[in-house]
Amino acid sequence: GFAKLDHHRSLRSGFGEVIYCSGKSDKHLIKIFQNFNERDFNVLGTRASKEQFLKVKEVISEAEYDELSGIIKIVKKSIDKIGCIAVCTGGTSDIPVAEEAAQTAEFFGSNVVRIYDVGVAGIHRLLSKMDDIRKANCVVAVAGMEGALPGVIAGMIDKPVIAVPTSVGYGANFQGLSSLLTMLNSCAEGISVVNIDNGFGAGYISTQINRLAVRGNA
Amino acid sequence: GFAKLDHHRSLRSGFGEVIYCSGKSDKHLIKIFQNFNERDFNVLGTRASKEQFLKVKEVISEAEYDELSGIIKIVKKSIDKIGCIAVCTGGTSDIPVAEEAAQTAEFFGSNVVRIYDVGVAGIHRLLSKMDDIRKANCVVAVAGMEGALPGVIAGMIDKPVIAVPTSVGYGANFQGLSSLLTMLNSCAEGISVVNIDNGFGAGYISTQINRLAVRGNA
Amino acid sequence: GFAKLDHHRSLRSGFGEVIYCSGKSDKHLIKIFQNFNERDFNVLGTRASKEQFLKVKEVISEAEYDELSGIIKIVKKSIDKIGCIAVCTGGTSDIPVAEEAAQTAEFFGSNVVRIYDVGVAGIHRLLSKMDDIRKANCVVAVAGMEGALPGVIAGMIDKPVIAVPTSVGYGANFQGLSSLLTMLNSCAEGISVVNIDNGFGAGYISTQINRLAVRGNA
Amino acid sequence: GFAKLDHHRSLRSGFGEVIYCSGKSDKHLIKIFQNFNERDFNVLGTRASKEQFLKVKEVISEAEYDELSGIIKIVKKSIDKIGCIAVCTGGTSDIPVAEEAAQTAEFFGSNVVRIYDVGVAGIHRLLSKMDDIRKANCVVAVAGMEGALPGVIAGMIDKPVIAVPTSVGYGANFQGLSSLLTMLNSCAEGISVVNIDNGFGAGYISTQINRLAVRGNA
Amino acid sequence: GFAKLDHHRSLRSGFGEVIYCSGKSDKHLIKIFQNFNERDFNVLGTRASKEQFLKVKEVISEAEYDELSGIIKIVKKSIDKIGCIAVCTGGTSDIPVAEEAAQTAEFFGSNVVRIYDVGVAGIHRLLSKMDDIRKANCVVAVAGMEGALPGVIAGMIDKPVIAVPTSVGYGANFQGLSSLLTMLNSCAEGISVVNIDNGFGAGYISTQINRLAVRGNA
Amino acid sequence: GFAKLDHHRSLRSGFGEVIYCSGKSDKHLIKIFQNFNERDFNVLGTRASKEQFLKVKEVISEAEYDELSGIIKIVKKSIDKIGCIAVCTGGTSDIPVAEEAAQTAEFFGSNVVRIYDVGVAGIHRLLSKMDDIRKANCVVAVAGMEGALPGVIAGMIDKPVIAVPTSVGYGANFQGLSSLLTMLNSCAEGISVVNIDNGFGAGYISTQINRLAVRGNA
Amino acid sequence: GFAKLDHHRSLRSGFGEVIYCSGKSDKHLIKIFQNFNERDFNVLGTRASKEQFLKVKEVISEAEYDELSGIIKIVKKSIDKIGCIAVCTGGTSDIPVAEEAAQTAEFFGSNVVRIYDVGVAGIHRLLSKMDDIRKANCVVAVAGMEGALPGVIAGMIDKPVIAVPTSVGYGANFQGLSSLLTMLNSCAEGISVVNIDNGFGAGYISTQINRLAVRGNA
Amino acid sequence: GFAKLDHHRSLRSGFGEVIYCSGKSDKHLIKIFQNFNERDFNVLGTRASKEQFLKVKEVISEAEYDELSGIIKIVKKSIDKIGCIAVCTGGTSDIPVAEEAAQTAEFFGSNVVRIYDVGVAGIHRLLSKMDDIRKANCVVAVAGMEGALPGVIAGMIDKPVIAVPTSVGYGANFQGLSSLLTMLNSCAEGISVVNIDNGFGAGYISTQINRLAVRGNA
Ligand SMILES: Nc1ncnc2c1ncn2[C@@H]1O[C@H](COP(=O)(O)O)[C@@H](O)[C@H]1O
Ligand SMILES: Nc1ncnc2c1ncn2[C@@H]1O[C@H](COP(=O)(O)O)[C@@H](O)[C@H]1O
Ligand SMILES: Nc1ncnc2c1ncn2[C@@H]1O[C@H](COP(=O)(O)O)[C@@H](O)[C@H]1O
Ligand SMILES: Nc1ncnc2c1ncn2[C@@H]1O[C@H](COP(=O)(O)O)[C@@H](O)[C@H]1O
Ligand SMILES: [Mg+2]
Ligand SMILES: [Mg+2]
Ligand SMILES: [Mg+2]
Ligand SMILES: [Mg+2]
Ligand SMILES: [Mg+2]
Ligand SMILES: [Mg+2]
Ligand SMILES: [Mg+2]
Ligand SMILES: [Mg+2]
Repeated sequence: GFAKLDHHRSLRSGFGEVIYCSGKSDKHLIKIFQNFNERDFNVLGTRASKEQFLKVKEVISEAEYDELSGIIKIVKKSIDKIGCIAVCTGGTSDIPVAEEAAQTAEFFGSNVVRIYDVGVAGIHRLLSKMDDIRKANCVVAVAGMEGALPGVIAGMIDKPVIAVPTSVGYGANFQGLSSLLTMLNSCAEGISVVNIDNGFGAGYISTQINRLAVRGNA
Repeated sequence: GFAKLDHHRSLRSGFGEVIYCSGKSDKHLIKIFQNFNERDFNVLGTRASKEQFLKVKEVISEAEYDELSGIIKIVKKSIDKIGCIAVCTGGTSDIPVAEEAAQTAEFFGSNVVRIYDVGVAGIHRLLSKMDDIRKANCVVAVAGMEGALPGVIAGMIDKPVIAVPTSVGYGANFQGLSSLLTMLNSCAEGISVVNIDNGFGAGYISTQINRLAVRGNA
Repeated sequence: GFAKLDHHRSLRSGFGEVIYCSGKSDKHLIKIFQNFNERDFNVLGTRASKEQFLKVKEVISEAEYDELSGIIKIVKKSIDKIGCIAVCTGGTSDIPVAEEAAQTAEFFGSNVVRIYDVGVAGIHRLLSKMDDIRKANCVVAVAGMEGALPGVIAGMIDKPVIAVPTSVGYGANFQGLSSLLTMLNSCAEGISVVNIDNGFGAGYISTQINRLAVRGNA
Repeated sequence: GFAKLDHHRSLRSGFGEVIYCSGKSDKHLIKIFQNFNERDFNVLGTRASKEQFLKVKEVISEAEYDELSGIIKIVKKSIDKIGCIAVCTGGTSDIPVAEEAAQTAEFFGSNVVRIYDVGVAGIHRLLSKMDDIRKANCVVAVAGMEGALPGVIAGMIDKPVIAVPTSVGYGANFQGLSSLLTMLNSCAEGISVVNIDNGFGAGYISTQINRLAVRGNA
Repeated sequence: GFAKLDHHRSLRSGFGEVIYCSGKSDKHLIKIFQNFNERDFNVLGTRASKEQFLKVKEVISEAEYDELSGIIKIVKKSIDKIGCIAVCTGGTSDIPVAEEAAQTAEFFGSNVVRIYDVGVAGIHRLLSKMDDIRKANCVVAVAGMEGALPGVIAGMIDKPVIAVPTSVGYGANFQGLSSLLTMLNSCAEGISVVNIDNGFGAGYISTQINRLAVRGNA
Repeated sequence: GFAKLDHHRSLRSGFGEVIYCSGKSDKHLIKIFQNFNERDFNVLGTRASKEQFLKVKEVISEAEYDELSGIIKIVKKSIDKIGCIAVCTGGTSDIPVAEEAAQTAEFFGSNVVRIYDVGVAGIHRLLSKMDDIRKANCVVAVAGMEGALPGVIAGMIDKPVIAVPTSVGYGANFQGLSSLLTMLNSCAEGISVVNIDNGFGAGYISTQINRLAVRGNA
Repeated sequence: GFAKLDHHRSLRSGFGEVIYCSGKSDKHLIKIFQNFNERDFNVLGTRASKEQFLKVKEVISEAEYDELSGIIKIVKKSIDKIGCIAVCTGGTSDIPVAEEAAQTAEFFGSNVVRIYDVGVAGIHRLLSKMDDIRKANCVVAVAGMEGALPGVIAGMIDKPVIAVPTSVGYGANFQGLSSLLTMLNSCAEGISVVNIDNGFGAGYISTQINRLAVRGNA
Repeated sequence: GFAKLDHHRSLRSGFGEVIYCSGKSDKHLIKIFQNFNERDFNVLGTRASKEQFLKVKEVISEAEYDELSGIIKIVKKSIDKIGCIAVCTGGTSDIPVAEEAAQTAEFFGSNVVRIYDVGVAGIHRLLSKMDDIRKANCVVAVAGMEGALPGVIAGMIDKPVIAVPTSVGYGANFQGLSSLLTMLNSCAEGISVVNIDNGFGAGYISTQINRLAVRGNA
């Protein structure tokens, strides 16, 4: 077959399997889903269109789809959730990326608290939520346009903040470049950054951190 | 002569004359200063090196120099100051640009209140200064690195904020590009932006606004 | 609910409420409009498509739409207009952005004079309009392609000029980057810049300035 | 004074104080060091030149300096180290940035294991070190030029990897942009990125993670 | 006619004729195909859409099309294949570009071994294939996103590696710029790079190298 | 020898010889100058430092140097000047580039009228010079910062305008990129652009045009 | 009316009127065409879609359209052509831009010779056409991808070359940026550059040059 | 020790050892040189300053230095040279990079023919050298500014061309970006590209190709 499926990964990491759906042909995509499905893994598909989901659904009836985040899920073994990750957004339009992060974290066994639309252009909205945010082991902060949210949060807590720039905006936003640069240049301590719109990556690494906080290096 | 000195400008605007010193040869620079000096204008030189100042001083003994901001001043008619502009910075390293703005505003007749080192990575520093900031007719907000300060201020006041990105930072800051983009993409209302490190431009337009607030369109 | 609506903002600023429509799902958008509508605010929606407007219209019948600027308006309290803002464009193609600025300024209570298609490639067109422009408290200058208009205007007046680069052009225009850079680098005094195509931002800050000119810092 | 020193930060976070030295005038720098020194904090200065250190040393004799990393340290309370962070580099030239990360982590109480010069152009060097790397709670992976090291490591472990691009390279490296983009685009799971050459940021967040792993969310 | 067909090229190089189809009008495209077809050349069309192929097929019935790579082939003289080129990809989504390279190489007379989906985020996949890769005279390594594959391969073999960045990815990938820069900055020895998505160019030069290895400079 | 001197060029074009001095080693530079000098050409050296000139002067005593423009000249055959080229600048700081253009044009036999410091931020300065500018066969318009001068001139005349962006400016000027883009995007008719700071190129092509105007295609 | 039509332009320049159609609403476009049509001008519309043309045709029946170049023409006064301009392209795909240049030049009264598909990747094609090219008063050289054609031509002739980069290409071509930079950096003498895909601009300035060559500065 | 020296590499590849000197501290550099020197390898140091060489010379007296290319050589086993590589440059200023390529190729056992200063702005210079170029197994083509040389050569021969962009130029050259893009976008067949100024990389891969041509896949 064309694709060397990475069956050891799940064993190694104790997590389920992940498929990046965007840009894959239907034929390839279905084959990969079927292949994983034959084994006893939970499977997470990211950046899937509704059309792709319907094709997958035809052959794997238990597949579920969340249109907002573009996530396909096949859950065979029930997932126990531990600890806590806070997923925050600057605006309403950042929610799809935030949901990709939140649902990824949940899929891999983290409890998630969602705190949306608390961007820094109205700082009182954020300040009123700080107690909830402080309880989490790790914060995922998602923001487009100017992208200042993660830095402001990181300045108020002593837990790691995973910053996710989004492509929300126009003009000199340059498809998310502006928020990416803002986050990389943050003067706050305790912040690191993933790719533009990469909710999945943020959900994954925050889960790794959350696990360490709950279980230590087991 | 090589330079068509713009003698009408001062009359038209009611302000003094300005010379952009950087990159001018000593010969040219001194000629321009002398030319203005022969008339009865106050003169402001920006982006002047200490070497340039000393050359100017040789021929115009009343010239003064501020090393931090690189400003040369020749004040012949005493300046009455009106209204209030708040000049804020994110960090200590932004002070030279802020001083260029503040001293430009003062040169053109504005009262200035300086509120430095209140960057958003420690938001309580800014919050404790909001009462002072709210009193001004116009705010000049100067920030490097992530450049989030102007947007956070604009979200808390209903006066115009003039944002000045600085080239303070390193790496993905790209000599101020990062803070420039942050400011242009701010979701807050009531913010507009000048060139990277352009304290002069911010000081000038904030003075125009301050005058309008005090005197109306006279 | 997902969106923390910023009900204090209107009180604080004395202005109405604003919704940035682009990229919001119909469900979210309608909910936000309804929420504001229940209170007694005027509401301004920007960057709305005709489809979005029709969805909003279904639930809020008094909503109005301007196709050129993409603005939705719900006016419950009649708006008194004061002072004067001049909105100028370089070409015919810049008019949609100019209208976003003009209608935003009118929504927030400014008188607006429109002076369109006076780009610097035929400078006599601009020169013949300078008397009208000089009467305004603040000028919004909108231009694409080379973007030289704001700088030339700022050189001829002593009121603040808010420069709006547009994405009109092709090739080395890079979706408005060229005009953005032109405006940021203007040697004229009294100019500051908003994001590419950000008519809303220019309309808002010019209204703040116009108010200061008419009412002072009240 | 000009600088609003952030005395609450140390209490809040349980860590010491940090001063970003680069670009500060001697007068400002010494004042800030003295201010912190009067209290009973440990102090860390980053990006300090030898000249700056000597100035500081004149007034605070117990200050120490590491020329490779540009770090100034004043240690008043002995530091207990816990857990383990692995700091890896692609090449010899990345060591200064790696040392900034390692010494920051040590300053804030983490044990560090250094694994240098294991870049992917000779993958056997890395493979032979994987056992050591796997023992850490968190990995800091530092690389210039192509910047592929963090992604390859993240593909082999299930702990978080903090990627640090360096400006080492020439030509199409564009002062670290190339390695920054590589790291942001890594297909491996469990990786997030800090600014180019930002060893400090990586040392800080990896310590937050290391603490969570050892102590949980205490 | 509008197009000066380069009839000598085939004679000069001993290879067949090539047509870059993308962006050509149907009228132009068919004329060029017919012109070549009248002579006794094999013809290769690259970057052809299915629509373009169907138009060509109407007039040249023996034309064949591969939808994955967008290649049209007209084979009149049977092709003898010599030597060996290994074509590798990082992921499944890079296969279309890899097939353009592989089929180009085969068209010009090279044997090709395909080794797909061996990206560095799971390095064991690549390591298990190194014996096959080492047998080739030349390696074409195709990768998107972070683009680290060619450098890792080049570090393990002493044959030339032709690196092909693809536009697969999103966000800070910037349509392939990220992988292009990675490959240009590789520290490994024996690597050079073609344009983003330029499978054709890689297939061509690797064939030139393969021929030299089999036949010498004949 | 290392350098294939292009002795036919002068004969072909009827012009003298040109040497681009910047970055050449003294040994190479002197050899090239001597080589040309042995023949009976006039020689123009561009972008020469004072140090380079002094080295050349040692071996070719009749060499002359203009420090402002960095031009070395060796004039053996007296130069007859024809027609008229207007060389204009926006500011005083653009004069070195303008002089490179003007002296190149004079070297190749054009009359030049210099009109300096007429930038568009004070448009009356330019308007008062339009009669002189209109008399020329071709205009070279040199500007840094926003770079709007060439477009404004081209809008007022019907002769070709050669636009020269300069690297004068700072911040978002990006070493002349801003003025380059402005000029490429000019909406005025009759304008084309040379490289940033390329006074030589502008002087050369304007001379070609001036000759055509005076002599026709002879 | 919204658009200040520039009726003096034609008188001033002796040329016809031009309308840039792209992005104008049908209502605006038709109004402008009608306005010009009422006077006795020839009219040239550039970058018009077929749909736009059909709308114009409905109200102005003598309007003609060329689909390849997107040019609309209304010719009321017959056009006398003088002199000679050579329009050359690197490839077949550059022809639409070349036709915009050629038809613009013809509209304004220049004879044009078309020399297409002579790109430098097969230099013998260009060399065989040099005699024709040398006869022209001015050369327009149009090229995409690497964009080397204008520089090679300029190296072989002593007439001005107007270089037109096109957006033909893919990947690291960045929509014509690559060919634009190539042309700006050409080491050949006698070359200047217009915007990417700006056939109109090249046709216009080459006509100005051609007129000077035939009529002198009349 | 800090540096895991890669002793197997030489055995594996049959070549000598290479040290990238730029940016290494004297202490590190000398240690690496000594380490290699103790074994019986030939050693090549690239991008070495004269100061670095003198430090190395103190401890390894047989070390040799070439100032033009910045290459340090320690030759213990005499080198047999085979086959032929042609190294060409566009201008005189590209020679340092070309020498890095040529001397690298010679160090690893290739015969090299140097053909310098044959840039395409005077195409006859190149045409007169094509016979020499055609004899080589592989061509290294080095060019700055517009960077068109490799594409023109590749269009005339059927051997692989390794293109090396240099940072020679100014303005819109952007430190070699322009020539890099030109080369990546070349329409000619049989060309691939290394990093800007990377003579070493070109010398290495061309040697791999040259060996394959002489010895086949041995
Ligand atoms: N620091 C500055 N940044 C930007 N523009 C300035 C600055 N200082 C002065 N200017 C402007 O540049 C003009 C003077 O330019 P010049 O004629 O070259 O001295 C002044 O009238 C100001 O409009
Ligand atoms: N066209 C626009 N461009 C930029 N910002 C806008 C625009 N329209 C509205 N906004 C801002 O976006 C805010 C609303 O964002 P949201 O809460 O996502 O609806 C408003 O309060 C404005 O500050
Ligand atoms: N200042 C300049 N900018 C750009 N090109 C130049 C300049 N001066 C000379 N040239 C060109 O570079 C060629 C000489 O290059 P070289 O052989 O390296 O001396 C001349 O024939 C001119 O075409
Ligand atoms: N001038 C150069 N440009 C790019 N890579 C080089 C250069 N010189 C040496 N290298 C590579 O860098 C490696 C050595 O790096 P280092 O271990 O830092 O000395 C060598 O094995 C080469 O692969
Ligand atoms: Mg924090
Ligand atoms: Mg506000
Ligand atoms: Mg003004
Ligand atoms: Mg991992
Ligand atoms: Mg290798
Ligand atoms: Mg004109
Ligand atoms: Mg020429
Ligand atoms: Mg070839």
